[in-house]
Amino acid sequence: MKYPNGQEYKPKTSRKSHKSSVEISLSSANRGMNLENEINLSNAYYKDHDICLITKRPTPINIVKVDYSKGAKITHAYFEEQSTTDYNGVYKSRYIDFEAKNTRNKTSFPLGNITPHQIDHLKRVIAHGGIAFFIINFESLQKVYLLDAKYVIEFYENGGRKSIPYQCFVDNGVEIEQGYNPRLKYIEAIDKKYF
Amino acid sequence: MKYPNGQEYKPKTSRKSHKSSVEISLSSANRGMNLENEINLSNAYYKDHDICLITKRPTPINIVKVDYSKGAKITHAYFEEQSTTDYNGVYKSRYIDFEAKNTRNKTSFPLGNITPHQIDHLKRVIAHGGIAFFIINFESLQKVYLLDAKYVIEFYENGGRKSIPYQCFVDNGVEIEQGYNPRLKYIEAIDKKYF
Repeated sequence: MKYPNGQEYKPKTSRKSHKSSVEISLSSANRGMNLENEINLSNAYYKDHDICLITKRPTPINIVKVDYSKGAKITHAYFEEQSTTDYNGVYKSRYIDFEAKNTRNKTSFPLGNITPHQIDHLKRVIAHGGIAFFIINFESLQKVYLLDAKYVIEFYENGGRKSIPYQCFVDNGVEIEQGYNPRLKYIEAIDKKYF
Repeated sequence: MKYPNGQEYKPKTSRKSHKSSVEISLSSANRGMNLENEINLSNAYYKDHDICLITKRPTPINIVKVDYSKGAKITHAYFEEQSTTDYNGVYKSRYIDFEAKNTRNKTSFPLGNITPHQIDHLKRVIAHGGIAFFIINFESLQKVYLLDAKYVIEFYENGGRKSIPYQCFVDNGVEIEQGYNPRLKYIEAIDKKYF
């Protein structure tokens, strides 16, 4: 069993939750965007400033063996596939749920890394009145977009498209402004789109 | 480092998400309540019947070492303390967030297992307009109550009480009806209290 996104596991700066946000921002500056880290930093900013409360779900781990002779050391475990999205929380009383993805592609966002479980999850979020979207970082274009999940669901389920054209983001998404702190002002994009 | 609640890790039935709910219900019948399992089964029922979408956050794991020679086998890791609550999701467009706890105590619910992080988290949920509560199983009394988080926060922060009297649950909580499927009809309690 592999790590869901096929990449090797790297310890995340965000796990050190007691470090100040600014410290982490500075040390990661000019090293190219680590989307997950940028979102986690933005969430920390939004939390500290009482703007919203959005958290990352921990990666699910399937634990096979724990050694209690050494203080509950896990000695055998595997990464499990996330059956939901990575982020959820609350903003202005509404339920927020989203998935964040990176692509180097300049003309479209490939849907290969989205699982059927995630599509099912996002459809249910919408059905129950939640706000569901994707944050897509077009790395090569240095553009980050918020796109409502309904477009992703449509492209995923109908017509057999394996990707979403960049133009769909321009036409239907909201570009997320990038700054110093918060790094990704995605709440402004939510305000534009949903409130 | 120990498992946050001080108990040994047991693999959860709920992880086998592809088993039918009924099958699991039958096999766990009359063996005393495993609160987490009952909530997970109720959530599966509520999801399947399009009533709400509430999921359990995975236990956060601090990964020290991964062996990629054997397909991303985690060989060294520790349980981390959950800094949020165990459950969140969406019901009737509202954000839902709660923690579930078991007690054998007959006259009060001891607050020893609630962390300051969880109290902070629940205060923020309330501030952003989310619905925040505890589900407490009084094991010896065979009674399960939903209690709004504001009472727990109050007892936790003021007056130095180390527990919440059972009478507070009777006076301010909503008893959760137990049944066959869903096992814990906690959505009915949410309806009574919040809608």
